[in-house]
Amino acid sequence: MERKLKIGIIGAGRIGKIHATNIVKLSNVELISIADINIDAARELATKVGAKKYFSDFSEVINDDEVDAVIICSPTNTHAQLIIESANAGKDIFCEKPIDFNIEIIKEALNIVEKNGVNLQIGFNRRFDHNFKKIKDLAQENKLGNPHIIKITSRDPKAPPVEYVKNSGGIFMDMTIHDFDMARYLAGSEVEEVFAIGKVLINSEIENLGDYDTAVITLKFKNNAVCIIDNSRETSYGYDQRVEYFGLKGCAIAQNDKPTNTILLNENGVIEDKPLYFFLERYMQSFKDEIKVFVDSILNNKKVPVSGEDGLKATLIAKAALLSAKEGRPVRMSEIF
Amino acid sequence: MERKLKIGIIGAGRIGKIHATNIVKLSNVELISIADINIDAARELATKVGAKKYFSDFSEVINDDEVDAVIICSPTNTHAQLIIESANAGKDIFCEKPIDFNIEIIKEALNIVEKNGVNLQIGFNRRFDHNFKKIKDLAQENKLGNPHIIKITSRDPKAPPVEYVKNSGGIFMDMTIHDFDMARYLAGSEVEEVFAIGKVLINSEIENLGDYDTAVITLKFKNNAVCIIDNSRETSYGYDQRVEYFGLKGCAIAQNDKPTNTILLNENGVIEDKPLYFFLERYMQSFKDEIKVFVDSILNNKKVPVSGEDGLKATLIAKAALLSAKEGRPVRMSEIF
Amino acid sequence: MERKLKIGIIGAGRIGKIHATNIVKLSNVELISIADINIDAARELATKVGAKKYFSDFSEVINDDEVDAVIICSPTNTHAQLIIESANAGKDIFCEKPIDFNIEIIKEALNIVEKNGVNLQIGFNRRFDHNFKKIKDLAQENKLGNPHIIKITSRDPKAPPVEYVKNSGGIFMDMTIHDFDMARYLAGSEVEEVFAIGKVLINSEIENLGDYDTAVITLKFKNNAVCIIDNSRETSYGYDQRVEYFGLKGCAIAQNDKPTNTILLNENGVIEDKPLYFFLERYMQSFKDEIKVFVDSILNNKKVPVSGEDGLKATLIAKAALLSAKEGRPVRMSEIF
Amino acid sequence: MERKLKIGIIGAGRIGKIHATNIVKLSNVELISIADINIDAARELATKVGAKKYFSDFSEVINDDEVDAVIICSPTNTHAQLIIESANAGKDIFCEKPIDFNIEIIKEALNIVEKNGVNLQIGFNRRFDHNFKKIKDLAQENKLGNPHIIKITSRDPKAPPVEYVKNSGGIFMDMTIHDFDMARYLAGSEVEEVFAIGKVLINSEIENLGDYDTAVITLKFKNNAVCIIDNSRETSYGYDQRVEYFGLKGCAIAQNDKPTNTILLNENGVIEDKPLYFFLERYMQSFKDEIKVFVDSILNNKKVPVSGEDGLKATLIAKAALLSAKEGRPVRMSEIF
Repeated sequence: MERKLKIGIIGAGRIGKIHATNIVKLSNVELISIADINIDAARELATKVGAKKYFSDFSEVINDDEVDAVIICSPTNTHAQLIIESANAGKDIFCEKPIDFNIEIIKEALNIVEKNGVNLQIGFNRRFDHNFKKIKDLAQENKLGNPHIIKITSRDPKAPPVEYVKNSGGIFMDMTIHDFDMARYLAGSEVEEVFAIGKVLINSEIENLGDYDTAVITLKFKNNAVCIIDNSRETSYGYDQRVEYFGLKGCAIAQNDKPTNTILLNENGVIEDKPLYFFLERYMQSFKDEIKVFVDSILNNKKVPVSGEDGLKATLIAKAALLSAKEGRPVRMSEIF
Repeated sequence: MERKLKIGIIGAGRIGKIHATNIVKLSNVELISIADINIDAARELATKVGAKKYFSDFSEVINDDEVDAVIICSPTNTHAQLIIESANAGKDIFCEKPIDFNIEIIKEALNIVEKNGVNLQIGFNRRFDHNFKKIKDLAQENKLGNPHIIKITSRDPKAPPVEYVKNSGGIFMDMTIHDFDMARYLAGSEVEEVFAIGKVLINSEIENLGDYDTAVITLKFKNNAVCIIDNSRETSYGYDQRVEYFGLKGCAIAQNDKPTNTILLNENGVIEDKPLYFFLERYMQSFKDEIKVFVDSILNNKKVPVSGEDGLKATLIAKAALLSAKEGRPVRMSEIF
Repeated sequence: MERKLKIGIIGAGRIGKIHATNIVKLSNVELISIADINIDAARELATKVGAKKYFSDFSEVINDDEVDAVIICSPTNTHAQLIIESANAGKDIFCEKPIDFNIEIIKEALNIVEKNGVNLQIGFNRRFDHNFKKIKDLAQENKLGNPHIIKITSRDPKAPPVEYVKNSGGIFMDMTIHDFDMARYLAGSEVEEVFAIGKVLINSEIENLGDYDTAVITLKFKNNAVCIIDNSRETSYGYDQRVEYFGLKGCAIAQNDKPTNTILLNENGVIEDKPLYFFLERYMQSFKDEIKVFVDSILNNKKVPVSGEDGLKATLIAKAALLSAKEGRPVRMSEIF
Repeated sequence: MERKLKIGIIGAGRIGKIHATNIVKLSNVELISIADINIDAARELATKVGAKKYFSDFSEVINDDEVDAVIICSPTNTHAQLIIESANAGKDIFCEKPIDFNIEIIKEALNIVEKNGVNLQIGFNRRFDHNFKKIKDLAQENKLGNPHIIKITSRDPKAPPVEYVKNSGGIFMDMTIHDFDMARYLAGSEVEEVFAIGKVLINSEIENLGDYDTAVITLKFKNNAVCIIDNSRETSYGYDQRVEYFGLKGCAIAQNDKPTNTILLNENGVIEDKPLYFFLERYMQSFKDEIKVFVDSILNNKKVPVSGEDGLKATLIAKAALLSAKEGRPVRMSEIF
């Protein structure tokens, strides 16, 4: 009989709920336990998805012999500590991004993961998106040639509350970090230099926090690819998520997904649907797929596809971008550590 | 606490499996039992989805006091009898299309449904497809005006085995029947006259069975809409499912869904994905939604959205189409009974 | 030095102006003369495009020794007589469609053309449209396979004045005739049977004239292709001109042309331009190209690409369509003569 | 009677031929003379388009009392001198871009233009392209809001010969200069800072010339817009010319133009045409329109739409881009003069 991976989830918030709901639909997983500092949230989610245990203390999930792997969905400032505890308890780990805002803390956590020989997958779900994955597939099949220019458009429909921005680490850490990972994933190389421009064009309150709502970032890669990322925290037509990979042999462009493929033709023009509204709509399948691959990798002793190193690298680029934007100059990755 | 609808499924074949898998993901349903003349198939599916009972005898599902509603997924020639039995047992019914090939038998079954005051929903899942539903929504919001011309393209990727065609009732009954229902649904009116052309252009074996592999059907509706349907049993680029509603105020066109929205540009052109391969890929969400609506309707004492009458009407049109194709003349619906 | 074809134009109305303007841009043509019963119109156009002679009497163009070829752009009821005169004068002829509404008259004109051994090209300009020509090219390169289903959507932006309809020969003769020619051109075969449905859904005045404003026509071809044409005299989003050729190997779809390829994304959706407004915008290049090919054919002793026979055939199909619509039955082409 | 503008053309090369051919189709222009140092080329073109005079000496065009305006299509290194001569002769001037590679020389020429009060229009034809013009129109109608992010993709189908690159001024001067002008045109503001990355990824010979074949340039504008330009000298799918304007109210995207709108669906996918091959195909209408507007402006005493100042500004940005690429740092426009 098929072995089932026994999983505990830490954090019963929005992303914890998504993972819990998706996990219980997998036939090769048993969801054992859910922890949240808000015990009611933990109980409610556990009841809904049929997890048999729930706790307010995260350690109860981690130190449960019945649990093989933990999924960390708690606030960012707890990630590193929970990774360390879980690794020390010999559990395989799936952790939401970012690992931490502090590079030293990330490195320490990764060291302990390595020392314990457990698996750690970071939640860069967009690598599993059907459109972007097809670009990667075309690149790997050598249909595109070496990447010369990579373009990523990543625009949110609505700016988050100012409160959120205060603790998010800023636009490069809360938003562009996904694009930094996508750039590395598609370029198949490491960033050498970052040049970032940040602007406050939408909500002037954000300026007081030292953050931006509009950003353009250029990345130079070791393999000579140049990547351009553009971000906005507000978009009249919804969530704009496009990626382009231009090589000498071909160019692949991932366009937006829409709720329907029905068009309306009338006196105003030919009108298509706006893109799917936000990340829950746009990336739901990728949330399912990243967990599926995590589970399959563990059960089959394969390397997980998004490593702690990937989490670290994206964070380092975000640091470089912030420094570049503040100082108005390109920043070499060798300056960041 | 929320009431759950208790369901039994008859037939553990392809479509039975789909419904079973979708049903157990609904929070307001309990799947009680599964029956199949092949008891192994019934057991296997029951185990997989967690139904507590399984039988080889359909009556065990129908006459179980614990069951509120039955889903009939068995072969077509059993549908009418099972509808009758279920109605007499006071169960609400979801039945796959077509109800039967024989009009008298259908009418008898519908009479007994009516006499018993139970609900009967027919499995015209395409009404729940996101693209087609948007056309209907636009029409109901009066964005399109009265329908003048309705066009339905419905082409299968691969001709079925000749064995299948022998018992399918022919192309108008096994394939176009969905399009006939779609036409009535979008026109919001009843068909007056049918003119059908059938051709054997793909597989000459089909000719011996008196069936066609290519068909073009014109429907005249009472409200003056004219509908054109074109069918092919084989399509080089996969499953082609498009619908167009042209009215005086606007035109809505449902285009095909594709696996990704990523395009490849190279020396050969600008290349998009082919449409989703076949009905399982293309219409999976609509299979989920038709059952969800069935369940919600029953639990909330609302009329089910696709009636036995709808099942009868589509079958009558299929009869008229066959007669028209055979005799090479337009056939009035009043000729068919 | 390159020989120049010396041309006279008969008719200085809308289409005469188009041909005159296009002709004088060709380096291998000399525009000698223009005739119009309205001498002012003839003079004005001649002055504008630099033709040295103008007349009110058509015969002055036809019987001018300096003229090699005539372009007939006068009203339909003069076409046949002018073809006959021109042929008897040994001139090559380009004539606007239709040749006449009367089959006997057409046949007589074609006989005299043949007897005199002159060239006659009919103005089915759409064969020269870039989009439709590409379908024909793909078919001839055997990229599509035999035609199984051909679909032509041809909808005008605005119904013509009722006065126009009185003398136009009706929708099948003034509008669908282009589609009948396109169907023959793409099918590469002759029509066997026509089934036409006509409706008055836009302007009830048209009913009194015995004409229609909405039509759906099905054509059965000798090579088993089935063609569906849908027409409307009024379209909220402009001029809808699409063609589809479905064969076993592939399908080619000609979509509408638009003024720009710029899209606007905002809270209302993703908005493209409407199609080019009407035939002058949509088919201007094809008007240029049909004349260019006519001239090149004459100068190089090649067969002209759209023959008098093509003009006759399209008219016969229009006759059959009208009979079919009136009698509500499919009409065999063998019934029409 | 309508006044005609009397024009002389200097330079009978590729672009001279285009302008000559387009000009003689305008009803309000008389083409008087053509000069080329190669007298045969001048004669041949004059004969072809019907200009009555031709010379090998440019001054014969400029100092001809019959000429109102000159169109300068000679090599770049003659532009400034010819502008000066023409201005001193009181002629209105249309000059191809760039005016010169040397800023001082450009400024001197512009001074003399101003002193003589003649009109000078620079050949930034892309401003007249239908797709890009629609973006500008939408912006001016305030459908888009202030520009936050402007993206320009400009990729040539095939790298030019190395010989060409030797005298072209390099990629920023021979290729991106059009994009710099487009950026200023759409942003409606002046550039403050330029950050350019240049790479040699296609043809290593170009490296020896100190030029690049792949470039990514970021422009910061005074009004806070940020513009990203990406260039490649070689593109597998032809000429890629796209522009995007993203503002708070809406986003406009100019997509590529294609030879046809016919798509082919087969087992390989859904295949559209590649973009129009190169600038002659893609921008032919804009070449016509820029001259038309020049002529209309002169005849109606209106300001010409693309000024000498526009020519100067684009050249300054190209200088800044080269400096930035060489030194690997953002360059303020105030550094360039």
